[in-house]
Amino acid sequence: MNYDSIFDKAIDRLHAEGRYRVFIDILRNKGAYPNARCFHGHNGPKPITVWCSNDYLAMGQHPKVIGAMEEALHDVGAGSGGTRNIGGNTHYHVQLEDELADLHGKDAALLFTSGYVSNDATLSTLAKLLPGCLIFSDELNHASMIAGIRNSGCEKRVFRHNDMAHLEELLAAEDPATPKVIAFESVYSMDGDVAPIHEICDLADEYNALTYIDEVHAVGMYGPRGGGISERDEAADRIDIIEGTLGKAFGVMGGYIAADKRVVDCIRSYAPGFIFTTSLSPALVAGVLASVRHLKNHSEEREAQQENAATLKRILTDAGLPVMPSTTHIVPLMVGDPVRAKKISDILLAEYGVYVQPINFPTVPRGTERLRFTPGPAHTEAMMRELVDALVEIWDRLEMELRQAA
Amino acid sequence: MNYDSIFDKAIDRLHAEGRYRVFIDILRNKGAYPNARCFHGHNGPKPITVWCSNDYLAMGQHPKVIGAMEEALHDVGAGSGGTRNIGGNTHYHVQLEDELADLHGKDAALLFTSGYVSNDATLSTLAKLLPGCLIFSDELNHASMIAGIRNSGCEKRVFRHNDMAHLEELLAAEDPATPKVIAFESVYSMDGDVAPIHEICDLADEYNALTYIDEVHAVGMYGPRGGGISERDEAADRIDIIEGTLGKAFGVMGGYIAADKRVVDCIRSYAPGFIFTTSLSPALVAGVLASVRHLKNHSEEREAQQENAATLKRILTDAGLPVMPSTTHIVPLMVGDPVRAKKISDILLAEYGVYVQPINFPTVPRGTERLRFTPGPAHTEAMMRELVDALVEIWDRLEMELRQAA
Repeated sequence: MNYDSIFDKAIDRLHAEGRYRVFIDILRNKGAYPNARCFHGHNGPKPITVWCSNDYLAMGQHPKVIGAMEEALHDVGAGSGGTRNIGGNTHYHVQLEDELADLHGKDAALLFTSGYVSNDATLSTLAKLLPGCLIFSDELNHASMIAGIRNSGCEKRVFRHNDMAHLEELLAAEDPATPKVIAFESVYSMDGDVAPIHEICDLADEYNALTYIDEVHAVGMYGPRGGGISERDEAADRIDIIEGTLGKAFGVMGGYIAADKRVVDCIRSYAPGFIFTTSLSPALVAGVLASVRHLKNHSEEREAQQENAATLKRILTDAGLPVMPSTTHIVPLMVGDPVRAKKISDILLAEYGVYVQPINFPTVPRGTERLRFTPGPAHTEAMMRELVDALVEIWDRLEMELRQAA
Repeated sequence: MNYDSIFDKAIDRLHAEGRYRVFIDILRNKGAYPNARCFHGHNGPKPITVWCSNDYLAMGQHPKVIGAMEEALHDVGAGSGGTRNIGGNTHYHVQLEDELADLHGKDAALLFTSGYVSNDATLSTLAKLLPGCLIFSDELNHASMIAGIRNSGCEKRVFRHNDMAHLEELLAAEDPATPKVIAFESVYSMDGDVAPIHEICDLADEYNALTYIDEVHAVGMYGPRGGGISERDEAADRIDIIEGTLGKAFGVMGGYIAADKRVVDCIRSYAPGFIFTTSLSPALVAGVLASVRHLKNHSEEREAQQENAATLKRILTDAGLPVMPSTTHIVPLMVGDPVRAKKISDILLAEYGVYVQPINFPTVPRGTERLRFTPGPAHTEAMMRELVDALVEIWDRLEMELRQAA
């Protein structure tokens, strides 16, 4: 039994497939997003433009957020000092849960240390509480939802991505008395497409299933108050559990669910991933509180983001670059090969000061490796033109084909 | 299929057993720990003394920690904006991992969003990488370790708490060619006792097992540099994976492992709970960096904590109160009944302004419900005397017996 050789072989497999991950070491510049300093591959910082951040609306540098965090830091200190039950339930946590419940028009909300943990803890606990539960899961659901479903130990049925006929076929095949949960996302983050929420809810009504939606790539960004696609489509009241993140459009860190009081109370009382962990730092919670309140009452960030995403898609398309058909703020460019995706990303960083991470397996299926751009309100048209010029040059250098301009 | 009634019944069970949890809503006062404001059960804040925080050394209010967090907040903003692989790998993360690796005398370290996640992600991934792996787990291991072991899908053998004969018996019964991991804690947080690390490592050597230690209730507090019990006992080099938290003695939030480079690289590359989650906010990481560096070079906080814990144990014992036999900074008082433990806690908070949470099932086994005090360097002897006087009065009021003073 040689442990070292097993570990070495596991790493060798990644190198062989060209998907060994190297983390790019950066510091973003508050007040000057998407500008950042890069420490990767040279001594001392070099200026770069970040094109792959999930701080979608640049709320991570918003003065209200920074101010609220600073105030909390000086009022109550750094960490919470305990689990929610043992000393770590601050007044900020209570207020933020109220604010998030209101955002989604629900009775109650519950904070977790991350969006990953909220999906894992909620789905696994939910399925354990419902005897014989079956989970119907979109094939493109995020790793954290897959983890929660697997960790519940319940059976699952995977339906083809956004395919309502397939979902109905699977629902209809089961005993009506079996507890059922349909788990899906609103915005799929690697393709930028959107789920047909009302159609899913129609099926849930017909087959008496609970609905669980992951809105992490939508909250803050869609709907008049930033309640996500479920708010935009006026479907929030048809969804049983809405899950969101505090680490993307809200710009800070953490995750949550919003739901009926009894569901929230059950997860709060039975989920080990909620119970047995130090609660979010009060400074983070104070920052999120400011962010959520701001985005409830302001649409400038959302509008600028949508405008810039549309502009970038247009310029990329005009240049003949293979933009994927996203209907959201996410702008993916198909490459189709892990080594090439990494190579393009490396050239962009080294020669153009453009940082966009290659997206390889297991984040996307093999053969669909891509670059994924997330233009926000702080990206300028000049930055976009520079980016597209660089991409055209690299496409040419690597002898990759451009599409005929439309 | 009535979902609501299933959820209602799940909550009713908790009420019936007297273990429905009510979170006490507080704000600690930075600069005046263990003083805090309590918002629970009345309008507006009321001053209280916190006796159950896991911010063991009050580092959550240390000026170096607060200063570092404030600086990072203004330099780089609130959140990291991405996973470690996609935009969320800041220079602070890289520096903190180096610092933690050094703290434990290891090649490498890896940050997670919490201690819970580090145990869950590491143990589950480790066991999946080692084909046919068996995990040997102390019966009192934390819920997060149990989650990791269960989520790995591997088989486990549970040994009686700190019972080396039983552990050896279980190890000896297995095929020598089977990969084995022994998973245990250094300080058991609800009893305050300590594992015999060298004896466990002797068995690991003999039976060719990897060793995994959870030091969350020890890092920062034991060893000349705060490397934990494994540093104090000069056993760190015999342990394969040391897991710790940044949310207790270090005063902030987050978790980590320190280990051989190849082990860290495997977990970094294969653990979904590490890969698919937004990284720790850089402000948190900057705060921890200051905290770890301070506690590597200063022992005042550790010494004051040990002194105060010894004093509190002595005063409690002298008063005839049932202190449990802890050999660490943790001071548990046995009650043995969930309703009574809650009642004592409620009286302390309402009448004495003393906040100590009752510890009930599932955090401790049924019948061993207790109060758990965590005196830190900021608690005074006057606070301790007030606390003990209050406890004696309540013990008398509830007609509970005091021991004969020694």
